[in-house]
Formats: sequence, structure tokens, C-alpha cells
Amino acid sequence: MVERQGILASIENDFPQWYQDVLEKAQLADNGPVRGTMVMRPYSYAMWERMQSAMDARIKATGAENVYLPLFIPQSYLEREAEHVEGFSPELAVVTHAGGKELTEPVVVRPTSETLFGEVMAKWIQSHRDLPLLLNQWANVVRWEMRPRVFLRTTEFLWQEGHTAHATREDAADYARRIHLDVYQDFLENVLAIPVLPGFKTPSERFAGAINTMTCEAMMGDGKALQMATSHELGQNFANAFGITFSDAEGVAQTAWTTSWGSSTRMMGGLIMSHGDASGLVLPPRIAPHQVVVLVVKEDARTLAAARAIVADLKAAGVRVKLDDRTQVGFGRRATEWELKGVPVRIEVGPRDLDAGVLTFVRRDRVGKQQMPATEVASRVPALLDEIQRDLFAVARTRLADRTARVSTVDEAREAARTGFAVIDWNALGEAGEKLLNRDAITVRCLQTREGALPDPHEPEQDLVAVVARAY
Amino acid sequence: MVERQGILASIENDFPQWYQDVLEKAQLADNGPVRGTMVMRPYSYAMWERMQSAMDARIKATGAENVYLPLFIPQSYLEREAEHVEGFSPELAVVTHAGGKELTEPVVVRPTSETLFGEVMAKWIQSHRDLPLLLNQWANVVRWEMRPRVFLRTTEFLWQEGHTAHATREDAADYARRIHLDVYQDFLENVLAIPVLPGFKTPSERFAGAINTMTCEAMMGDGKALQMATSHELGQNFANAFGITFSDAEGVAQTAWTTSWGSSTRMMGGLIMSHGDASGLVLPPRIAPHQVVVLVVKEDARTLAAARAIVADLKAAGVRVKLDDRTQVGFGRRATEWELKGVPVRIEVGPRDLDAGVLTFVRRDRVGKQQMPATEVASRVPALLDEIQRDLFAVARTRLADRTARVSTVDEAREAARTGFAVIDWNALGEAGEKLLNRDAITVRCLQTREGALPDPHEPEQDLVAVVARAY
Repeated sequence: MVERQGILASIENDFPQWYQDVLEKAQLADNGPVRGTMVMRPYSYAMWERMQSAMDARIKATGAENVYLPLFIPQSYLEREAEHVEGFSPELAVVTHAGGKELTEPVVVRPTSETLFGEVMAKWIQSHRDLPLLLNQWANVVRWEMRPRVFLRTTEFLWQEGHTAHATREDAADYARRIHLDVYQDFLENVLAIPVLPGFKTPSERFAGAINTMTCEAMMGDGKALQMATSHELGQNFANAFGITFSDAEGVAQTAWTTSWGSSTRMMGGLIMSHGDASGLVLPPRIAPHQVVVLVVKEDARTLAAARAIVADLKAAGVRVKLDDRTQVGFGRRATEWELKGVPVRIEVGPRDLDAGVLTFVRRDRVGKQQMPATEVASRVPALLDEIQRDLFAVARTRLADRTARVSTVDEAREAARTGFAVIDWNALGEAGEKLLNRDAITVRCLQTREGALPDPHEPEQDLVAVVARAY
Repeated sequence: MVERQGILASIENDFPQWYQDVLEKAQLADNGPVRGTMVMRPYSYAMWERMQSAMDARIKATGAENVYLPLFIPQSYLEREAEHVEGFSPELAVVTHAGGKELTEPVVVRPTSETLFGEVMAKWIQSHRDLPLLLNQWANVVRWEMRPRVFLRTTEFLWQEGHTAHATREDAADYARRIHLDVYQDFLENVLAIPVLPGFKTPSERFAGAINTMTCEAMMGDGKALQMATSHELGQNFANAFGITFSDAEGVAQTAWTTSWGSSTRMMGGLIMSHGDASGLVLPPRIAPHQVVVLVVKEDARTLAAARAIVADLKAAGVRVKLDDRTQVGFGRRATEWELKGVPVRIEVGPRDLDAGVLTFVRRDRVGKQQMPATEVASRVPALLDEIQRDLFAVARTRLADRTARVSTVDEAREAARTGFAVIDWNALGEAGEKLLNRDAITVRCLQTREGALPDPHEPEQDLVAVVARAY
């Protein structure tokens, strides 16, 4: 596509600058005054609210309940379980002064609520009847970032973290798998229209303290990978560290098996980079704050009345619709603005079309204008939005397939990772090959079955493939 | 009422301890490890989620949009506008170390996001076409508390803060009034069933920087007042401090008029203390996580099947219903537990009732058991819940009326405030009388018209009354 008079940097030639431009021009987010923090403007926050609500419903459907744990954690807590916090300390923000004086013990701003979940679970679980205990939290967390980038890597971000305790390893594994498939993958594919590769992390990429980490990996517009969400089986490591025990049906003390799982505002970055094009954002209808914008082409009482009637009809049909009647602003400028903001369907209402009984509409994901009878707008638009949702997913899936190469050597994997993903037998690559690739900032994103499915956690000796890529 | 075998302290004799006991026994909240912080357990967080959702819908209906601003604020920002932050500094938590080293400039954990709202509004507003700008944020904030008390006064709490900018003083005043009446008062009375006294704060109780502060004051079970939410007209003070200007229709630079308004998890404390009784929580159906609990009296296949059918019928009728089939736990113990948790309706399913084709139910807000035909449960329970909602409001309103005395001297006001509220002519009390009462920790909660309504902000010289009370 032709570059748009310098509104955005070229998506082909300078993807990182295109991303920054989209953040600004589509009024998604600004940098905050403290390095690495971000201001989520109404347009991106409205998307985050929809993400939260869609995820939260799925999380609750698994039986989990939400809690809220404190922002502040005593510094000593983070020394309790070295394996879990290793790597955090340079990332921590520490409060040393409060109440007008120096604190006896500094407090840390939570990098996760893991240690507090450990504490409350140990307290709330007594008997096997208290299991499974399925908890989740939506909150802000802080990890001091050296190379911040809005949504992808920010000092403060919003996320959900789930922590669950179970009586058996099998129950914990099944639950973590359910979160991975029924919450994360289902949400990412069916709401955000982003196809993901489900898989296990390699031992070196696994979360500290986990016996298994499952990940949802997606391909961005530039062929790089973005980890969208992870779920961990923590075995009994976490429960041992925090004393999470229960008395079983025979009254014998047992150690629980736990899981944890998280996803964050990083998904906003994935949404932008997965579907965006040379003209800006492209939003799947299920997440778009406005699914349709109705543009009044010129100031004229009849046109305005017709536009308002269309808006009312669409609202009644359950469509999220925005009226743009700012006729004092040029039509072209407004059309470009809604294009930048990725609104799935733009309906243009002008006097000539009204005479002809038709409406002109533009799909954000297609080139060119189309028409539909004005009387059919409320009956046709919902189906059109469903079609756009499916098409965006199909386009992303095709790109993922087209830019994934089946390779058999480390050199071929390295070459393929310049523009996309490489799939290689894990037995052929091995941890030695993984280390070689790491030198070039290429990582094993996940291990899958040959069919591209999540491996079976109960059969560790499977014939797996490694998906290899550069990543955000 | 008779004290319940020491489960809770007496609500008549030791209201503060009763409150603490309810927090613990109804599994609402725990203290966090850092002094003054709290853990919101699933049961209270589920209520907070309902509060958020009901308030958020009302806030959005006024046209406001949500944003998310950073947790961290450069320390220098809080020195910008002395009038606005005066009184905060001993309350601030300050991060001095991050990224493994000492920061060049310390950052403050937001006590409010006021300064950041000022900054973004100045940036986002250019023209009169950008007005009104109506923003809101749901977030955690931190104010170091010397005498913390869960929900009422915690070091960290959850809240919403709205900030809006308008072209004229009238538009700002009308919007602040709308938030006060259509968001706060409507939510508190119609969802939480808590009658509130709307009014203006006196000059000495007004928010720093405000030209007018509106408040929703409620009476707790012990006759003390709790401020549930406030809305402020900030005149041009805030806009002047942050440079929030716009070019009007003639292109002339003008200063905006702003408002701010907030409510917090403090409302959870108000909910507990407003409706609770000797047996624990009493929840209005519109906020209750479980509106009905169906108790299986004894283990028996037919009873269990009948209970499950009732639960399914109630769910289909849109009722939030919980099945308690823990027949291994004594019936009395389970009944007491649901009473403690304030579930509005308890339905008991036992074999004898099933034979008779009836169901025994207990309203949490009434003494004694009642019966209804088993076949009518799904048709009768929704109306019953509406009735309970209305009755709780009526009971609270009657208490407010009964415990409010009309007085004419400072001495009478002081005496009346021992057990409830006093109403006195503001002209008779004056700022001198207000100071006298303050010595005994009695404050003017609000100024109202003689009819008990919100005064007219456009007519400052009104004949007002002062509502006087001890307060949380």
C-alpha cells in the first residue's frame, strides 16, 4: 500500500516506528512522566475493559473467584523463596519512606502477588474440602524496565494472575491445561482474532519454580513472536515454600499442588501488531469500542436525520455504533481518522445515496467502497461484523502458515527466523541447538506435537517439534 | 437480640469489635502484612465488583470515559500546586530505589491521580470542541494511615476518581450535580439501600481547592455518620494550576472550569455498618453475591435432586443462587454461616416439606420461618428479593429519621450527636459553633435546604440547615 502522506511510518520499512506512530495517532496511549510508565487513553482503555470482561467471564466459568491483595509486600517476603524471585530484584521498586519518615522495613511494590497468594492460600486451606482453591486477581504490577515500550514492556502494567491449589498433580495439570485452552487460547482466537501456537516452554524458558509452563505464542505483522499468556504447573514447589498443606480424607497432612497463570496489557500490543496495516489499526469487531462509525458526509438536515435513524437502528440491533456528525471537519480527514482507529465498518451517509435508497460502506479490512440497500442496514451489519471477525482470523492464520518454515538444521532455523517462524524437530535441535540460536536472539517459543497441538503433560517422552523465532 | 454464643461481639455494646468480627467471620477481609493494607477475600471482592459495575454504568451514562494513568508520580509534581496537595505529604509513600539503584528523583505512589489528570487534560484539550472532557479512572491509591481500619481507612484502597473540564462554570456545576444525584445518590439508595443526606460541605470541610463540595452522608448502625462519596466544583483553580485552556469559538484562549468526584472501597464499610445486625451481615439483594442459598437439610437422593431442581429454576429466573449440599456439616452450623454472610433468602429443603409440597424459607431481615408452595419458587422469589431490597431501605430510612433531632443550640446539637444526627439552622450555628463542636469530635456533615435537599449552587444566600454528627 501507498504510504499515507507521512501520518504513519511505513509498516514494511520501519515496523517499530509504525507501532509508535499508531499509539499516538490513534490516540491509544502516551508515555507517563516516570520512565517506562504509560497513560492508557479512553480508546485503548475501552478495549482493555472489553478484554478484561471477556477473559473474566471465561476465568469465572472455570470456577475461579477474584480477590484483591495489597500492592505493598514486606521486603523480607521476597527473600523467602529464592527460586521464585530470582531475577526480580533489579526489577523491584522499593518504598523506603512513608508517613513522613523512613520505614523500619522497606516495602516492595508488587512485581507479582505470588508471595501474598502463597500466604493466603496457606491460611485459607485446612482440609481437602477447601480444595481446589481457585483464585484470580486483576491488578497493576511494577517491574522496573530498562528498555520500556508501551504495552509490550512497561514499568507498570495491568494484568490478571491466577493461583490455584489442588489435592493431586493430575487435578492441577488438568486445571492449568483448561486455563490455557478454554480461557487464553479461546479468548485470543475468538475475541482478538489472533491465532496462537499452544505449546510447552523448554526447560530453559520455563518459569522459575514451574515443572511445566504452557504458552500461547502469536506471530506479529513483522514475523516476530509475542508471548500472549502463560500457565504454569508449579508441582509442589510453591506449596512447599509457603506451607500450603491440607488434611486429606483420612486426616493425614498432605502438600498441595499449585498452578499459576497470567496475561496482561501486553495483549494490547499484540492486538495492534497482529492486525494493523499501512493505514493504522485494524480492530476485530468483538473488541472494537465502536464497531461501526456512521459519517454524515455534509451538513444537511435530511442527511443528519437519516444518519441518526441508522445509528438508532444499529443500536437496536445490538451494534456498538458511533455517529460522526462533525461536518465542520473535512470528510477526508474524518475518514482517515476512523481508518487510523481501525473501526471495522464505516458507513457514509450523503444526499445522493439517500436519493438512491442505498448506503455506501467501507470495510476496514478491504479496499474499496460497497453499497447496501438503506432498509437492510440493521439486518445486514451484524452478519457483516461476524464475517469481518472470521476474515481477520483467517488472514492472520494464513500469514502464520505462510511465514512458518519446516527446517531440519540450526542454520536453516536461523535463516527462517529472519522473517518468520521455523519448525524443527526438538530431538534434532536439543538444548545445545537452542543455546546456539539464543546467541542470535532467537528463542524456542514453544514445543508442540507434530500436529501443532499442546503436548500431553502425562507423557513427557513425546516426539515434539520446536517453534523457533525472534520475539518481543 | 440475643448474643450468638460469642460468634460476634455485641452490636449494641461494642460496635467496633462487632465490625471487626464480621469482617473475619463472614470471610470479608484480612489485614495485609504491611500495616494498614487489606486482603479483600472472594466474598467482599464479589460485592466490590458489583458496586463497580453498577457505578460504572451510571458514570458512563453521563458520557464519561475511563482511562488509566500511572501509579508513579514524580515527586516534583506534588509540589506544583500547593493548595491541592497540602496535607498529603505525611501520607505519601515514596519509592527511592528501583532498578537496583537509588533514583535521581524519588517517585511517589499516587495518593490520587489528580496531578496526572491535570497534565493530560492540559495536553488533550485544545479547542472548545474538545469540551466537555469527561474522564474517570478505577485504580488503587495509597495514603499512609496512622489509625487504619479495614475498608474505612486503609493505607491502600480501591476507588474511582472522575475529573472533567467544561467551557463554563454553569456546565461544570450542572455536571458535578448530576454525578452527585444520578451516580452517587442513585447508586447508594437503589443498589446499596442506604439512604443518604445530600448536601454541601461547609467552607472548613470543603476539599482543598474546591469552590463547592457536595457530599452523600449516611447514618451507620451506631448513629455515626459515614461520608460515602463526594463531588467537587473546582472553579478555575485546578485549570489555572495545570494550564488547562481552550480556544473558544472566536479563537480566544479561555481557562476551563473543572470538577472532580470520588468514591471508594469505604462504601464496603458503609454497607456492613448500615444494614448489619446481631447475627452478622445483612445484604441488599442487588449487591449480594448469592441472593438465595438453597440448603439441603439431610443427605438423601430425593432431597438433593429436589434442591438441584430449585436451584436450576431460580437460575433460569435470573436469581443468583448457591446450593449448599454439605450435609456432612451440621445444618445449624451452615444456617448460622449463611446468616453471618447476610444472604437475603435461605431456602431449606427437607424430606417432610417435600412430602407436603412446600418449601421453608427464611428472610435474613426478618425473624422466623415462612413457607411457600414448592411449585411457585421461581415465580415468587424475584418479587420477594425486590421486597427485601425496598424493606432494607425503608428500615434504614426510619432509623435515620428516628435518630435525627431538630435542635436550636450548640449544646443540644452536642447532646443529640451522642446517639445520632442533629439538624440546626446554619445561621444559628455558624462557623463559630462549628468550631465549638469540632472540639468534641463532632462535625458538620453537610448543609441542606430546610426540605433536606441539595442546595442550589447558583443561590449562595440560602436559608440552610446544618446536619451535625460524629463521623467515621
